[in-house]
Amino acid sequence: MKTFIWAIVLLLTLPVIAFGGEEAVTATITTNKEAIDLLQTNLNFVWTLIAAALVFFMQAGFAMVESGFTRAKSAVNIMMKNLMDFSMGSIAFWAIGFGIMFGTTSTGWFGTDGFFLSGWTGTETGDPWILAFWMFQCVFAATAATIVSGAVAERTKFTGYLIYSIVLCAVIYPIFGSWAWGSLLNGGGWLEGMGFIDFAGSTVVHSVGGWAALAGAIVLGPRLGKYGKNGEVRAIPGHNIPMAAIGVFILWLGWFGFNPGSTTTGDSSIAMIFVTTNLSAAAGSICAMLTSWLMFKKPDIGMSLNGALAGLVGITAGCANVSPTSSVIIGAIAGVLVVFSVVTIDKMHIDDPVGAVSVHGVCGAWGTLAAGLFNMGGTTSKIMITQLIGIGSCFIWAFGTAFILFKVIDITIGLRITKDEELQGVDITEHGAHAYNDFQTLN
Amino acid sequence: MKTFIWAIVLLLTLPVIAFGGEEAVTATITTNKEAIDLLQTNLNFVWTLIAAALVFFMQAGFAMVESGFTRAKSAVNIMMKNLMDFSMGSIAFWAIGFGIMFGTTSTGWFGTDGFFLSGWTGTETGDPWILAFWMFQCVFAATAATIVSGAVAERTKFTGYLIYSIVLCAVIYPIFGSWAWGSLLNGGGWLEGMGFIDFAGSTVVHSVGGWAALAGAIVLGPRLGKYGKNGEVRAIPGHNIPMAAIGVFILWLGWFGFNPGSTTTGDSSIAMIFVTTNLSAAAGSICAMLTSWLMFKKPDIGMSLNGALAGLVGITAGCANVSPTSSVIIGAIAGVLVVFSVVTIDKMHIDDPVGAVSVHGVCGAWGTLAAGLFNMGGTTSKIMITQLIGIGSCFIWAFGTAFILFKVIDITIGLRITKDEELQGVDITEHGAHAYNDFQTLN
Amino acid sequence: MKTFIWAIVLLLTLPVIAFGGEEAVTATITTNKEAIDLLQTNLNFVWTLIAAALVFFMQAGFAMVESGFTRAKSAVNIMMKNLMDFSMGSIAFWAIGFGIMFGTTSTGWFGTDGFFLSGWTGTETGDPWILAFWMFQCVFAATAATIVSGAVAERTKFTGYLIYSIVLCAVIYPIFGSWAWGSLLNGGGWLEGMGFIDFAGSTVVHSVGGWAALAGAIVLGPRLGKYGKNGEVRAIPGHNIPMAAIGVFILWLGWFGFNPGSTTTGDSSIAMIFVTTNLSAAAGSICAMLTSWLMFKKPDIGMSLNGALAGLVGITAGCANVSPTSSVIIGAIAGVLVVFSVVTIDKMHIDDPVGAVSVHGVCGAWGTLAAGLFNMGGTTSKIMITQLIGIGSCFIWAFGTAFILFKVIDITIGLRITKDEELQGVDITEHGAHAYNDFQTLN
Repeated sequence: MKTFIWAIVLLLTLPVIAFGGEEAVTATITTNKEAIDLLQTNLNFVWTLIAAALVFFMQAGFAMVESGFTRAKSAVNIMMKNLMDFSMGSIAFWAIGFGIMFGTTSTGWFGTDGFFLSGWTGTETGDPWILAFWMFQCVFAATAATIVSGAVAERTKFTGYLIYSIVLCAVIYPIFGSWAWGSLLNGGGWLEGMGFIDFAGSTVVHSVGGWAALAGAIVLGPRLGKYGKNGEVRAIPGHNIPMAAIGVFILWLGWFGFNPGSTTTGDSSIAMIFVTTNLSAAAGSICAMLTSWLMFKKPDIGMSLNGALAGLVGITAGCANVSPTSSVIIGAIAGVLVVFSVVTIDKMHIDDPVGAVSVHGVCGAWGTLAAGLFNMGGTTSKIMITQLIGIGSCFIWAFGTAFILFKVIDITIGLRITKDEELQGVDITEHGAHAYNDFQTLN
Repeated sequence: MKTFIWAIVLLLTLPVIAFGGEEAVTATITTNKEAIDLLQTNLNFVWTLIAAALVFFMQAGFAMVESGFTRAKSAVNIMMKNLMDFSMGSIAFWAIGFGIMFGTTSTGWFGTDGFFLSGWTGTETGDPWILAFWMFQCVFAATAATIVSGAVAERTKFTGYLIYSIVLCAVIYPIFGSWAWGSLLNGGGWLEGMGFIDFAGSTVVHSVGGWAALAGAIVLGPRLGKYGKNGEVRAIPGHNIPMAAIGVFILWLGWFGFNPGSTTTGDSSIAMIFVTTNLSAAAGSICAMLTSWLMFKKPDIGMSLNGALAGLVGITAGCANVSPTSSVIIGAIAGVLVVFSVVTIDKMHIDDPVGAVSVHGVCGAWGTLAAGLFNMGGTTSKIMITQLIGIGSCFIWAFGTAFILFKVIDITIGLRITKDEELQGVDITEHGAHAYNDFQTLN
Repeated sequence: MKTFIWAIVLLLTLPVIAFGGEEAVTATITTNKEAIDLLQTNLNFVWTLIAAALVFFMQAGFAMVESGFTRAKSAVNIMMKNLMDFSMGSIAFWAIGFGIMFGTTSTGWFGTDGFFLSGWTGTETGDPWILAFWMFQCVFAATAATIVSGAVAERTKFTGYLIYSIVLCAVIYPIFGSWAWGSLLNGGGWLEGMGFIDFAGSTVVHSVGGWAALAGAIVLGPRLGKYGKNGEVRAIPGHNIPMAAIGVFILWLGWFGFNPGSTTTGDSSIAMIFVTTNLSAAAGSICAMLTSWLMFKKPDIGMSLNGALAGLVGITAGCANVSPTSSVIIGAIAGVLVVFSVVTIDKMHIDDPVGAVSVHGVCGAWGTLAAGLFNMGGTTSKIMITQLIGIGSCFIWAFGTAFILFKVIDITIGLRITKDEELQGVDITEHGAHAYNDFQTLN
């Protein structure tokens, strides 16, 4: 195989020999045109799959952010959850999710074929483009799943979490996805039929994850000691802020796959998406920092880091249809919004250790609204109503199904570890391991 | 230079000006065909070199896995070994290894020219494709070298390790490589002549590293206190499990360069390789987790992480010639296998602190067998025998030469630090440094 | 949008349908030629933007190196500075810097239009290539800014640092950049008019950052306790050496975007740049290790890591116009140089906690000289004089303006925290946070 490819490459680099005198295969205008089309397709494969690799890397970023913002005694569990999110998510999305989201036959609400990557073209391995597309969509599904991990950190049974993760990747995420993005492979869903704008998934990916996170945090209840007897909010500081910060840098990097990769086309359209993505993230972190500075008298690192993520989530829907200047505004508002949202959710005694609901749920909704508001093609009341319908239906679907799911898990096998286990730490009770064996740790 | 390139780019974006009316250079069907061929070559350069960058990043992943799974008092040494693996490996592969592996004149067992990247085309810098190909092969050679680092951790003299690392990159790895992959540039080696299937190096890279690791661990003997007086096995837990976990994510990312990059061609063939690579890793981590859960009553993070790596190593040989469904099976078996292998090797009192022999040696062999067993083109007894010959010859060559090498180092300059040094830690005795100066550490 | 793209892709993969029988649009030699030119442009977009993503990731690398080499009580501040470097730098370079560096109207010393990415082509979002080029240049500007962060670590007021960072990205860096690289978009600067060789920015990026770092370190003065009463130099060891090491691996990875990405063209020319970049880094780390071994009797990890960076900075100017063999020599000399430079600067009682001045300033100058000395097209006294003029003007400009800037900040709002604050640590006094809340830390 490699030998063969190599031989071709050598031939290609020897045009004088290969095409001097008589040509082995006579090129024509038509064969040239076909070769050009094939080349663009090849470039699309390379770009889409590199973008998928960058999005995959976001799993590491999420793991670091979630772990860094929580306690040392829960770090092993968070790493396990993120590893299994992606592993179980990949298998679930291969077996079930992709068919539900993009199956060519459909109930009108979800697809009903294409499970296990079968049947796409009748060959054993299928159309290579389906495989590339699956890879890109698979890392998106796993992203939605992993968002919840932080919100339910430090107090969730590992088995309960695994069940949630599989169901989200196999059913909850793909069904909503089919409403908004199904037409990428089949006849299309009802939301996109209305003209819903969500280019890379502020709603489809982030809000789905964010509202599921909200459901999980509510069903679980807060960590022991998080809220005092008189209702006062107590900070439980993260154990490794540099790790969280590097995680945010990795997520920012991954977003350069997430947003521009959603073109699934290697052409000039990706340039503006890079720029809007970057500027929104920058504006988000600056404005979150300034907001925290005003509120808490010091520039807060947790808020600044979440501000960058807020800007990234906020621009995800509109990255391809808003101007760079608009992206700065969108990110700036997301950065302010995330601080107020984190504080408000905390006041409501919903314990979201990493701010996942605010970053992904709230800023995902804001970004989806903003994609309509700042649409370069113009904004109409019809567009805004459609965006609101998309935002609302996502909340109802994702929060509703996740709430039921977490409740069912809670009632059957149990969702939360015991108080003793929580005091010891979920690492030792669920995995029999400490994260930092050679260090003197507190808590 | 940049100005010139820029001028060209501007020209290319102005087709109306450049090609309206009379064309400066008259395009023909033949010049178009040549331009198309050149474009595919350009795409191959971009893809192969980005893939090489991803594989390079695996060095960071290995450093984190190895360091995370061992003690705090050895972390500096592991970082130094990984940095030097790659640095010395790069220089050695430039000076010697690449010529031995791909030299155009050959003894039949290894190449004998092309050292120092000289002589490939008679120009000062050579054919650019040779340079791209060298870059891609260089990061592979360094991967083979770095696999050993973990197995010999915490007790090896730094100078002894450096000598091993240079010899592996300059001689041991390239000679075996020439047997299986030599034809990529020259007449070809005896193994590939038989039809040996190892697309991206389950055997060529991972088993070579894994069996060399086995030799090193045997020659060195176990760490102090690893096995009790009555032969009982004592766990020496790693000092930073989150670091190890992030390292595995980085390795998984790097494998998206390692396997699909081995096409060295930017086209649709990379899609299936992404999918098989990803599914095998996912299945590996799940099945290793489940196996550890059954064996130890808890889902073990070390085993789960190694399970992902086992799945990745296992699919490396067959990533381009097995179906996605087969990749799930291959990864699943690798995930089970790695747990039993780690336990067995530990019972044999061979101290491999990170499980490198099991992950790379054993699962590399399994993957090479599986590439024959699940071959989409069909499996014959001839194929299976050839795979077994490849697996066996790799063991004999890599284990044999590495064993001799480590023994020679041991007898001459000494391979192992003293007991006192080991108790103090290899960081302070070999490098005069602590990894974590501001932390209260144990051990 | 996605639906539309998808439709096109499907069409492209169905050449038989699309182009069998009668063609919908008749291809001609000229339309084929135009399509080919467009494809190369598309490939340039993909390559340049992936390279930009890799360079962005260097921010994480710098954050890890700087934090790892300093104390635990300053880690939050370093993460904040790096996050804000990039965030504020992005906004500043969008609003002001890019126009100054590449504006199409110019005073002869800097550009005067194109601010806020406006006016490039009269459309709302501009020429997509300008956007891609902005993205690539933006990550370069932020790199220059972040270099200073390490040199002024542990003792600088956060507000003072933010002001520096904005001014560097908005004014200091772009003005020098316009002298050497302005012609990439406009008529060109005076340095490049003389034939100055600095392909990817040994001087333009690294020396600018390095000399600004020197100015900052001098204006601030050393950390408390760094130099004894009798003038003796005291080591203040870094708190997390593995983090610093992984940071160096990330920087090395990022340089595979930094140097070859500077072609902004996806073609075979990037291959040699990958090779020279890699070999120089390898030689740098080896030679720095050997030098430290001779000087301090042990192979020092800090020096080895900085040696890799020294090799990378050293090859940045000449990566496209020196041979692989020359790159080994350039890196080797950089590796020796950085050790002597670090020791010398320390003896001068200039406290540069991470060696930024030596790595980026000194080795940047060396690399710029070396780009002339080892120029494959031949070396003349005119070339060498031009290189020296570039090096000298960079020192005068960057050190001079940064020195004035830091002095002005010092006199007005204050640049340095108080002694009490420094003893407590900049994390708690500037950000109200500890980096490692669950760990028992010293200092």
